[in-house]
Amino acid sequence: MSDADAKNPRVPIPRDRDNDYTESAAAMRRAFIQERTGASLEHVGRYSLEPGTLPGNIENFMGVAQVPIGIAGPVRILGEHAQGDFYIPLATTEGTLVASYNRGMRLLTECGGVKTTVVERAMQRAPVFLFEDARAAREFGEWLTEHHEQIKQAAESTTRVGKLLHIARYPLACNLYLRFNYSTGDAAGQNMSGKATHAACEWILAHYPKKIRYVLSGAIDTDKKHSLLNVLQTRGRRVVAEAVLSREVLERIAHVTPEQLFEYRQLTQAGGIMAGSAYSGAHAANALAAMFIATGQDVANVSESHAGITYAQLLPNGDYYWSVTLPALIVATYGGGTALATQRECLEMLGCVGQGKADKLAEICAAVVLAGDISLTSAILAGDWVSSHDKYGRNRK
Amino acid sequence: MSDADAKNPRVPIPRDRDNDYTESAAAMRRAFIQERTGASLEHVGRYSLEPGTLPGNIENFMGVAQVPIGIAGPVRILGEHAQGDFYIPLATTEGTLVASYNRGMRLLTECGGVKTTVVERAMQRAPVFLFEDARAAREFGEWLTEHHEQIKQAAESTTRVGKLLHIARYPLACNLYLRFNYSTGDAAGQNMSGKATHAACEWILAHYPKKIRYVLSGAIDTDKKHSLLNVLQTRGRRVVAEAVLSREVLERIAHVTPEQLFEYRQLTQAGGIMAGSAYSGAHAANALAAMFIATGQDVANVSESHAGITYAQLLPNGDYYWSVTLPALIVATYGGGTALATQRECLEMLGCVGQGKADKLAEICAAVVLAGDISLTSAILAGDWVSSHDKYGRNRK
Amino acid sequence: MSDADAKNPRVPIPRDRDNDYTESAAAMRRAFIQERTGASLEHVGRYSLEPGTLPGNIENFMGVAQVPIGIAGPVRILGEHAQGDFYIPLATTEGTLVASYNRGMRLLTECGGVKTTVVERAMQRAPVFLFEDARAAREFGEWLTEHHEQIKQAAESTTRVGKLLHIARYPLACNLYLRFNYSTGDAAGQNMSGKATHAACEWILAHYPKKIRYVLSGAIDTDKKHSLLNVLQTRGRRVVAEAVLSREVLERIAHVTPEQLFEYRQLTQAGGIMAGSAYSGAHAANALAAMFIATGQDVANVSESHAGITYAQLLPNGDYYWSVTLPALIVATYGGGTALATQRECLEMLGCVGQGKADKLAEICAAVVLAGDISLTSAILAGDWVSSHDKYGRNRK
Amino acid sequence: MSDADAKNPRVPIPRDRDNDYTESAAAMRRAFIQERTGASLEHVGRYSLEPGTLPGNIENFMGVAQVPIGIAGPVRILGEHAQGDFYIPLATTEGTLVASYNRGMRLLTECGGVKTTVVERAMQRAPVFLFEDARAAREFGEWLTEHHEQIKQAAESTTRVGKLLHIARYPLACNLYLRFNYSTGDAAGQNMSGKATHAACEWILAHYPKKIRYVLSGAIDTDKKHSLLNVLQTRGRRVVAEAVLSREVLERIAHVTPEQLFEYRQLTQAGGIMAGSAYSGAHAANALAAMFIATGQDVANVSESHAGITYAQLLPNGDYYWSVTLPALIVATYGGGTALATQRECLEMLGCVGQGKADKLAEICAAVVLAGDISLTSAILAGDWVSSHDKYGRNRK
Repeated sequence: MSDADAKNPRVPIPRDRDNDYTESAAAMRRAFIQERTGASLEHVGRYSLEPGTLPGNIENFMGVAQVPIGIAGPVRILGEHAQGDFYIPLATTEGTLVASYNRGMRLLTECGGVKTTVVERAMQRAPVFLFEDARAAREFGEWLTEHHEQIKQAAESTTRVGKLLHIARYPLACNLYLRFNYSTGDAAGQNMSGKATHAACEWILAHYPKKIRYVLSGAIDTDKKHSLLNVLQTRGRRVVAEAVLSREVLERIAHVTPEQLFEYRQLTQAGGIMAGSAYSGAHAANALAAMFIATGQDVANVSESHAGITYAQLLPNGDYYWSVTLPALIVATYGGGTALATQRECLEMLGCVGQGKADKLAEICAAVVLAGDISLTSAILAGDWVSSHDKYGRNRK
Repeated sequence: MSDADAKNPRVPIPRDRDNDYTESAAAMRRAFIQERTGASLEHVGRYSLEPGTLPGNIENFMGVAQVPIGIAGPVRILGEHAQGDFYIPLATTEGTLVASYNRGMRLLTECGGVKTTVVERAMQRAPVFLFEDARAAREFGEWLTEHHEQIKQAAESTTRVGKLLHIARYPLACNLYLRFNYSTGDAAGQNMSGKATHAACEWILAHYPKKIRYVLSGAIDTDKKHSLLNVLQTRGRRVVAEAVLSREVLERIAHVTPEQLFEYRQLTQAGGIMAGSAYSGAHAANALAAMFIATGQDVANVSESHAGITYAQLLPNGDYYWSVTLPALIVATYGGGTALATQRECLEMLGCVGQGKADKLAEICAAVVLAGDISLTSAILAGDWVSSHDKYGRNRK
Repeated sequence: MSDADAKNPRVPIPRDRDNDYTESAAAMRRAFIQERTGASLEHVGRYSLEPGTLPGNIENFMGVAQVPIGIAGPVRILGEHAQGDFYIPLATTEGTLVASYNRGMRLLTECGGVKTTVVERAMQRAPVFLFEDARAAREFGEWLTEHHEQIKQAAESTTRVGKLLHIARYPLACNLYLRFNYSTGDAAGQNMSGKATHAACEWILAHYPKKIRYVLSGAIDTDKKHSLLNVLQTRGRRVVAEAVLSREVLERIAHVTPEQLFEYRQLTQAGGIMAGSAYSGAHAANALAAMFIATGQDVANVSESHAGITYAQLLPNGDYYWSVTLPALIVATYGGGTALATQRECLEMLGCVGQGKADKLAEICAAVVLAGDISLTSAILAGDWVSSHDKYGRNRK
Repeated sequence: MSDADAKNPRVPIPRDRDNDYTESAAAMRRAFIQERTGASLEHVGRYSLEPGTLPGNIENFMGVAQVPIGIAGPVRILGEHAQGDFYIPLATTEGTLVASYNRGMRLLTECGGVKTTVVERAMQRAPVFLFEDARAAREFGEWLTEHHEQIKQAAESTTRVGKLLHIARYPLACNLYLRFNYSTGDAAGQNMSGKATHAACEWILAHYPKKIRYVLSGAIDTDKKHSLLNVLQTRGRRVVAEAVLSREVLERIAHVTPEQLFEYRQLTQAGGIMAGSAYSGAHAANALAAMFIATGQDVANVSESHAGITYAQLLPNGDYYWSVTLPALIVATYGGGTALATQRECLEMLGCVGQGKADKLAEICAAVVLAGDISLTSAILAGDWVSSHDKYGRNRK
């Protein structure tokens, strides 16, 4: 494109709207882009998914990004939902990543596996109600308590699956910030929560004896962004992955001792506190981004889901207890991109297709995060971090 | 897979290692997974990229994730590097997203476009040096100042492109946490920074008159995680996107007034502070995840890059100044996944292939973030948020 | 003192322990210090309080700090508990402070007064229970729900006043962090909460069917330190002070317009977010430290209590709504230093002696904070900040 | 006071302004308050300080708060400025506090003492400059670099003591937030920094070739409030206190083992991260508030100064390395309340009167913080926390 002289036409849409999700509509758009920008979109147009499956997932479809998938594993998981040895599809373009996770998985497996537990579930929509003063806001809060059952009914009338768990209140100035917490089954549930909360708010508006105003989000949802509120109160699933690493396996596979890990941990905890880090371990985001792309999750949720707190102890027998708690892991096995062609296949690899599989997927994600943290941390300590990136990494090009 | 009885074989690797990045190696792995888990990987195996291009990007390659791409735009950008009207490839599975960004882009374009500016650049590796006590650490800091030029030379000897900008120091207890800041050209530069810093540290180790220990990361890099340190000191690029929105266009396209936006902004700022949010606008992560996947960025960097601070003013003439500052936007037009088949095509769409294009890509990303925030915020205020998700969103399935 | 050669004697204690809280014991200690360090403690020994009132407040008593008190006010407060015009004792050594608060109070009073509201109350002790794994911790959480009434009884058996409101749970790794929330009447309640929680935990230990361990604080109380958890969940009292400032009064007394204040507010909000500030207004800590010293509060609680979020709107008629929410204001009118000689007199000045006055004191504190923020912010904008510090401040010496 | 019917007279000021700082003016004010509120201010009026010393410290002086002081110590300090055994004056009304610090000091002393080091110094004023767009702000930043020497001269022309160390820049939107960092000798330096920065900004305004606006604080100073920026970049003094605690002394005096402390530390670090705490140890605020009151510091600075990061390691020989880093410790031995009667006596006790003593005082403060953290932490672990508060604490009344 000659950037400057564009005449600003919109992206074309088929005359017959029913033909919007077809390869011919996609081809029309690719041709349009090629004409406007000179870019060939040959590979973007080479896909096997069926465009007719895309309504609800995308608009102005023109083709696909092909993101390479590597397999890591198996990793032995001793979850409540995920039990056994799993091969993990990781969609990434960062060299070394699959190899490193692979090593961590081997280490975990040789140590007997990683125990995973979903300890809380909650998805939110957080409207704010505006009042004349703080007292009116407080009074409204009391009314909410008295009418909780009706509000719950109004919210749940919009969904088969979602259940309103509780409404948290955060009074601030003349406003009352609310945070509606739902269980949302196998869906991530952002839309479900939004729709249910909207219905609840409209019910409130119709029944509250005074005139009030509200906005459906007061920014404390906190959708698509990390927040300490998420860490404290859970968003999506709060999942713990924990393992006891034997000295022998650590030394043999990762070339570190428990004492080295524990000494170093004190350094990284203090550093992370000083930096104000969202994650106190090594790199949850790498595992999550790669798994989210592969399995059709909403990848933007990496922002929330990468938060976490690690916790470790050197055990009396010299083994090393290592855990990671992910307080805002948002995963789905229903809805979103989970039904698309390659995404569904990757969910199948994990045995995560069908009803009641979101907890299983959450457990697997947490296990993979732990594997990656062990591997990277050990590489940093053993001094093969830079050299392995030289071997596997992008620098070769 | 019968989860429980897996006998734990590793993912197969071709006998002849030179054949590792071939379709036959990938097919072997898919067959292995199908046998182990029962999952068909038919679509995963349908790709047009050339496996021979993948070394440095992935290990244990078995196929691709096909992530649908929609086009939004054009958006008029008045950057220093990006100038003109751009069509934006968004790889996502979240319905409504492309349509919403599209609307924001139209609004911005009708208001004359979005001004974008890269104001700082820095990529980091952050080693920590360990001492007997705080005084020894402080003394080491003074030695660092005296030997800065030699350390810089040692670091830069490992890279054609990277330049060591400065070494920030954060004394804590008996340790000195350092943060090496580099300019890294068109590459994201994490590996470049790691390698250069490793060389610098080894030089230090060899020349410091006393025996010292260090670890290459003291966790304040802060790689693959959000941190306030990134917000303050920049990681990747610090980019500002700003626009003046006319009342007329806001009312016509977004059905809101500047006064509504500004009143609501006060609510969301207070809410965001209370929640401890990493982003004070609506949803930078959505734009960034979708663009990062499409253009071959390291998607895990959404964790760092989604941080940001919005700033707005109601102008005396009633128009609305709206800006977003992304302090940790990590993008590359060289290295990583940028050379892969579909990813390169999407970079071509944006005119971001070739040397010296990373600033341009950063500007485009920031412009798209702003478009999305305007659109979503307006939808929340105008009340079409839930209804549009009902129309476009995943609930239809 | 010759620092180096001290032979390390402990501070003397009277032979007869019953004489510990007497002037003669204090004099003995002052003589000891004078001998050891050469410091005259003449003024420290000049006090009018009765040493016999000090048990429970201090050990090794040797005298007093005389902190000058200035009066500011009156400030008109339209609270639920504080109603009328109040003169405020401020114990400080920072020149300009009393004068500046005085100006803010005059401004607020001329605008009709400041409305104050206590919207939540809670004091905490936060034990952590340790388990073998996350599942055992989760199971314990379920048991807690089932035995809430008995635990409540055990806790409340230790106190006449305190009531257990709820027990918040924060699962992390193999631990369950709890946060016991109490109402504590007119006392600050840290000790009351500690004792009650200790009793509750001992009851749990005796009745839980499995062997468990706990520690009485897992650091999330978060006693004597600012935390975002306090901001979200309230510690002490959550109090709102709000006022509508008329343009005329702002211009006449503070030399600023509402528009200037609102424009500037956008700058300070963004700055505060970037800096990671605990308080989004100007300087709550100044008011609180000065009032806490004067009225016998635990001054260390300035760390928690100075946190806060300001919220403002420019009203359609051009007036300015300004509020401050203090989420962790810890005040008492019973216990601590409230019964001491000068402290009790200052509480009398405020009409805060006797039962049921802690809410009143909290409201007054919040009103004073608002007055100070208005005055300082206006001074910064009107340009008399530096000049007034030159006039009143310490630079004169 | 009958709250409601006050007629709002201002606090009286002597006709002859020169008589403002006299006991008769103070008596006039006490009589006024007694008349208006009914409160006797007999004890408030019993002071030995000379009112004529108060200009620059307070306005509308009416008397003093008598805050009881207890002595703790001695504590052996192995600082660069503080060397020897020190007796510490603690002004507090919280029972148990002096006794607990005393115990910690004994423990530290028996372990050989606490090593203290001032590692950085900086006091700030942080103006924000406003521009039309981000590019104009960036251009201004470049001009600042070129004119650094002249700006430094302008700033330093206002002060004998202060030196401008560097100007940190934080670009955000169309603004450039600056943070002027000064060394300020023995004064806390907030006013000195304000005045110098004001002069610098006026110089800039006069010499920058374009018309610009600024405000003297953009809220990132961050004066009188905790912030992560302070933690990272130092405000006041960054001081480290560190000690090696022998197992034998820990067990004998504190009834804990190094292993217990280290295990518990892992719990509190994780808890503190989850809570978003400003201090990762036990209770720095207690030591600081008590010492600040006693020695004439600006007590509101407890808000900033209580922030800190603890760091510990279990040493190979089984001893325990424990340190605390206070990154924003603001103390003075000149200016503020340091010259007042009792305050100066307490500084004399510490050998901190005269030139060049602020570093010494900072070291002592940090040592006392460490003593208190050791004692409280041990009490929590050994189970005598609640019982000792029962013995010494306020519950007795």
